[in-house]
Amino acid sequence: MSTIADVAREAGVSKATASRALTGSPQVSPATRERVSEAAQRLGYVPSTSAVSLATGRTRNVGVVLPHVNRWFFAEVLEGIQAALLERGLDLTLYDATPGSAGRERVFTEFLARKRFDGVIAVGLEPAASELEALLSLDRPVVSVIGTEDRTSLVALDDAHAAALATSHLVSLGHRRIAFLGGTSASHWPHVESARYEGYEREMRESGLAEHTTRTPAELSMPAGYEAAVDLLSDPSNRPTAIVGACDEVAIGAVIAARRLGILVPSDLSVVGIDDHVNAEMFALTTLRQVPREQGATAVELLTRHLDDPTLAPVTVSIRPRLVVRNSTAAPSGATPAAVRDFGLSRVPNDA
Amino acid sequence: MSTIADVAREAGVSKATASRALTGSPQVSPATRERVSEAAQRLGYVPSTSAVSLATGRTRNVGVVLPHVNRWFFAEVLEGIQAALLERGLDLTLYDATPGSAGRERVFTEFLARKRFDGVIAVGLEPAASELEALLSLDRPVVSVIGTEDRTSLVALDDAHAAALATSHLVSLGHRRIAFLGGTSASHWPHVESARYEGYEREMRESGLAEHTTRTPAELSMPAGYEAAVDLLSDPSNRPTAIVGACDEVAIGAVIAARRLGILVPSDLSVVGIDDHVNAEMFALTTLRQVPREQGATAVELLTRHLDDPTLAPVTVSIRPRLVVRNSTAAPSGATPAAVRDFGLSRVPNDA
Repeated sequence: MSTIADVAREAGVSKATASRALTGSPQVSPATRERVSEAAQRLGYVPSTSAVSLATGRTRNVGVVLPHVNRWFFAEVLEGIQAALLERGLDLTLYDATPGSAGRERVFTEFLARKRFDGVIAVGLEPAASELEALLSLDRPVVSVIGTEDRTSLVALDDAHAAALATSHLVSLGHRRIAFLGGTSASHWPHVESARYEGYEREMRESGLAEHTTRTPAELSMPAGYEAAVDLLSDPSNRPTAIVGACDEVAIGAVIAARRLGILVPSDLSVVGIDDHVNAEMFALTTLRQVPREQGATAVELLTRHLDDPTLAPVTVSIRPRLVVRNSTAAPSGATPAAVRDFGLSRVPNDA
Repeated sequence: MSTIADVAREAGVSKATASRALTGSPQVSPATRERVSEAAQRLGYVPSTSAVSLATGRTRNVGVVLPHVNRWFFAEVLEGIQAALLERGLDLTLYDATPGSAGRERVFTEFLARKRFDGVIAVGLEPAASELEALLSLDRPVVSVIGTEDRTSLVALDDAHAAALATSHLVSLGHRRIAFLGGTSASHWPHVESARYEGYEREMRESGLAEHTTRTPAELSMPAGYEAAVDLLSDPSNRPTAIVGACDEVAIGAVIAARRLGILVPSDLSVVGIDDHVNAEMFALTTLRQVPREQGATAVELLTRHLDDPTLAPVTVSIRPRLVVRNSTAAPSGATPAAVRDFGLSRVPNDA
């Protein structure tokens, strides 16, 4: 590996000048800068970043704080962030903030305080007040993905709107007994879950169906959705004709539960999710699509704007989901099938 | 935020002494080191890492190179690595090496060359020769997860053994027409896929079933496994009685395909996977369990040993999988049910 001394020799300048040229110091003439930079390129010289960041005050690194990487949404956002940072030549340092863990506490008290980054993207953090203060006191731009935080810039799905659209799709098909499945009192994403429930609840009320409003709790996972749906569906005399899942994983759990109970989807039961999860198409799930990878890219875009202009006020990007109709929703038995059934048929029939 | 000057004043020493004490220089007496370190703690002083790494030559950071984060195995390994690094107070910089991407090339030519880490963990990289040279030329310890690399330390599942155990489980239940499902010519994990196929093929041969050896290609995902299994199972006259899936996702795809075709699992078709994926239990899948999170922790353990002892030769940790019998395997119709069927019954019947 070549050193700064090699570069200086090759360019015929002093080590100090070579170093100043490569860190963009205004004390160096453009001609010298070019000569040094060509020499560095010829020799395959890559500067030590410790030295560069002391010299420039920029780390060329972004900290990403995430509660989980082993879940679809978070992994997709992370991939989106990573691709966008890579394009800009920026490194990514990952901080794991699993809710309630001792590690999360250390991330806030110790790791983030090292300030090894020019800015932070906090994904699905729903930070406690003290955590938010710790983030803001770093004196680096922060962009949040998911949440209601208005003291940082924010990229977030309009969750209430997504659930309202899911509900309204079912209402327009002729359903009245529409149940909401998912959400727990001990949730790590209280905002997402409550906003989605509120969207459902509001739409039911506005459709004159307030009396049918009901919520069955379940964690936001396929197995939890499966178990809760078995409970919800096992009594034929008191069974909804349609379910709004708090997310696709819960909704897919409900589709599987229905099959095991001999309930045909969509002719006996319609199910809608929110996400367009990677497995949604395979289960022919009607859903409200969000693209978390794009949310990650948007967060990087926003962070870059804050880095370029430290005076920029926090910006909120609210994302509208799009209804994707597949084969898990239909008019309830006895009702007139709606025209919407002609669209989005999957080659995987759900009631086979 | 307090500075090194504040710490020096609080401890009654010079700035240079305070700095030397905090970076562990042997020129400082133990008593002074303690006084300075107490002062730093009282003031909540966190050193700038750029300055620390120039002073110590250690970045307190580990680079992790991964082809994907949005897949179960990789996300679990990453969580294991992250938890183990956090325990040791080390940062994690993530490098995305999606096979065939332009980004991957930049990671090797530019990002890694910045050497912002004390060592590297490469997960499922299956590096090209030039990539491996680039990694080794960094002059930092490298630990691989997955693969056959013997020039770095390695943590890897014994893939051939896993597939042989899966096959032998089916043979002992009385199956003869056992098909292997999964693997593609354009795979990004040629080693894993070929080792698993070879374990199956060897076990078939040793059981006198070489004539029944067959492989249906499929990418290692649930939808791909589903599609390939529909093809494999749709001709009743030429249908296997059992399937070894190249991984759990492929095997779960096969279970779903069987249900859609009206083939009962396990009475008409047995299916075994490899992984113990987070969804395996929900589909009552018999499988060979590996715990990727532990592989991540082991990789960190190995890397730490290399950092402590630069002369340490590469070490290989080969992981033996464990058979987990659930409800997706049984004796073929007509055969005497094996005693093994009494174990591992899930509360989710697969042939409901």
